[in-house]
Amino acid sequence: MRRVAICGRSLCKVGNYYSKSLRELFAGVALDAIENAGNPHLDAMYIGNMSASEYFSQKNIGVLLSDSIGLKSTPCVLVECADGSGGAALYEGFKSVASGLYDFVIVVGVEKMSEATRGENRRIGSMAVEQEYEAFHGLSLDGEFAIIMRYYMHYYNVSKRYFALFAVQMHKHAAKNRYAQLPFEISVEDALNMQTVADPLTLFDTAPTGDGAAAVILCPLEKAKEFTDTPIEIVGAGQARDTLALYDRKNILTFDGTSKASKIALEHSKLKISDINLFEIHDSYTISGFLALEDLGLIERGKVGQAVEEGLIDLNGPIPTNLSGGLKARGHPMGATGVYQAVEATLQLRGEAGKNQADPAEVALIQNAAGIGSLVTVHILKRV
Amino acid sequence: MRRVAICGRSLCKVGNYYSKSLRELFAGVALDAIENAGNPHLDAMYIGNMSASEYFSQKNIGVLLSDSIGLKSTPCVLVECADGSGGAALYEGFKSVASGLYDFVIVVGVEKMSEATRGENRRIGSMAVEQEYEAFHGLSLDGEFAIIMRYYMHYYNVSKRYFALFAVQMHKHAAKNRYAQLPFEISVEDALNMQTVADPLTLFDTAPTGDGAAAVILCPLEKAKEFTDTPIEIVGAGQARDTLALYDRKNILTFDGTSKASKIALEHSKLKISDINLFEIHDSYTISGFLALEDLGLIERGKVGQAVEEGLIDLNGPIPTNLSGGLKARGHPMGATGVYQAVEATLQLRGEAGKNQADPAEVALIQNAAGIGSLVTVHILKRV
Repeated sequence: MRRVAICGRSLCKVGNYYSKSLRELFAGVALDAIENAGNPHLDAMYIGNMSASEYFSQKNIGVLLSDSIGLKSTPCVLVECADGSGGAALYEGFKSVASGLYDFVIVVGVEKMSEATRGENRRIGSMAVEQEYEAFHGLSLDGEFAIIMRYYMHYYNVSKRYFALFAVQMHKHAAKNRYAQLPFEISVEDALNMQTVADPLTLFDTAPTGDGAAAVILCPLEKAKEFTDTPIEIVGAGQARDTLALYDRKNILTFDGTSKASKIALEHSKLKISDINLFEIHDSYTISGFLALEDLGLIERGKVGQAVEEGLIDLNGPIPTNLSGGLKARGHPMGATGVYQAVEATLQLRGEAGKNQADPAEVALIQNAAGIGSLVTVHILKRV
Repeated sequence: MRRVAICGRSLCKVGNYYSKSLRELFAGVALDAIENAGNPHLDAMYIGNMSASEYFSQKNIGVLLSDSIGLKSTPCVLVECADGSGGAALYEGFKSVASGLYDFVIVVGVEKMSEATRGENRRIGSMAVEQEYEAFHGLSLDGEFAIIMRYYMHYYNVSKRYFALFAVQMHKHAAKNRYAQLPFEISVEDALNMQTVADPLTLFDTAPTGDGAAAVILCPLEKAKEFTDTPIEIVGAGQARDTLALYDRKNILTFDGTSKASKIALEHSKLKISDINLFEIHDSYTISGFLALEDLGLIERGKVGQAVEEGLIDLNGPIPTNLSGGLKARGHPMGATGVYQAVEATLQLRGEAGKNQADPAEVALIQNAAGIGSLVTVHILKRV
């Protein structure tokens, strides 16, 4: 297998682009990433998208999107794994270059959610839930995470305040990220006093919906230096799964996919988790942020709240996490999120992260999950 | 690149399985194909499916389906290119083995359409049409093919009778195929007297909707012989595109994707079109069958009707085509169709095609298209 590098990247601020179509959002970042990579000839395109078929009744968006940037003969693969689509598309793109199949590929995550009402967005998000049994009995994605959060609070005897602290921390990071959807700080009281979504989840325990697009260009490491002075190598990649249904799990306080995928990625990279300088994790809900930090082995089980309060995941803490603001405050354009994480890690490792620049920033880990962690992708990125 | 073979296959009769779920349909053929291949360890799964999200509100079906057969750690990629999904999934699976990334992969096409009404199925099928301009102005998939058929009739001065003859031929083949959805013969009068769907298309110019699943197992050719006495090599593979929108085309009487993809596949195989013994083509409408035969260079433009009348594409003719009955009469379970074609070609090349066995059957070509040919995949299969 060949070594693979990121040689170009682009992203747009997550938001509500009422006057832009899916293809415009896509074309903006795709063309910018291609330019950022020094205009290589692209051999293939991997698209992470969850729900263009729901928002626009459009199938076959690979052709739609590649038409939009004039790539009329480039193979295009649409990867759909709910809100884990972006990371999964990155994983497919990575393998296609590592195996020697392609030299230059573009991986784009794109989602346009502002067409729909908030209720409609919640319904579409819940299509990640197992339908025949769980959704059939009325469970939504919010409902499943509410069950997990409730059980976590009971099992570890922790209060909602700790979850609010996590949201506060995410907003603190987002306030300095010009690409964040919610770039403002909030207080613990703000978070605690928000309306209930599904008890005990309040609005600030959930990630906002929004439009977004992000792209990276991948190529063999040895070719990357012809195109960029700051190639970022993907030194580890892992994907792992859990059951789609919550009822099939032995323990709902851990997402096996995260621990397994990170183990694979770390072994691949020959690094230890303690070698990683910064993290972008999948906090689609505050509770999924908690579980990710625990499943990655970064914080003791049941202790994430205290760790956040002590500043451990802050920019200036020992394990800077979600310097972008995370899904909670950078925003969660579902199928695009995993590629956002890759771009954000790349910006950090290139020293281009602006006010949220971590130091040191040599190695980053990104974790993207589908639904209730049914499919998790972990990548480890390293400055060359 | 390594040589790739099919070492196992399975399919079920296309039909309306009201009492079977998507995962049951899938699991039936997936487990049967694995057994048919001698129970290899699978490294990855490629799924062709167009519309589980519409029929079942279920995203992330890769996890759902692999859960259903106990493959809880196997990477699974969902490939969606409208009704070209099956062929596109086969193409991705082929590349993954050819490149050395994986040794054994399963490619499954699956679609369950019987949950919906006929009208709903037509709406879902039309999601393959470009939405922002063409669907917005009222065009359905039927409507687009009606335009193409009307123009074909005008341009070449041919009557509807020739299209009816094509449908008759498809049903003649299907009558002897135990996996066909409509295994009965029809007369030219039957076809001509059917209700109009979108003038000049009548019901028998269109393919029926139905449930279906088909699977093949791919592996490196050198390993295939450990698992089967009758490996079928994929000697050529090509994918090519056209614009998503009809209004973007220079000429609507040819699908560029078909001619380009077959050129790529033929060059790859070092064969000429005249070396091919039998064909499975994408006749989602009689007119798309006409265009496929012309774009593959098998029949002179404008002359398909006469060729069919003269028996050219019959089992006993010089270019036996759609011995399965084609999409018209074997049935068209959208995202599954491309994999059906691969299984049907494999059965022919193995001499297992029963009453429709072609002779000689050394080399077969299969062509699967998305929507109005916006993405076309061509594979050439050869007995080893």
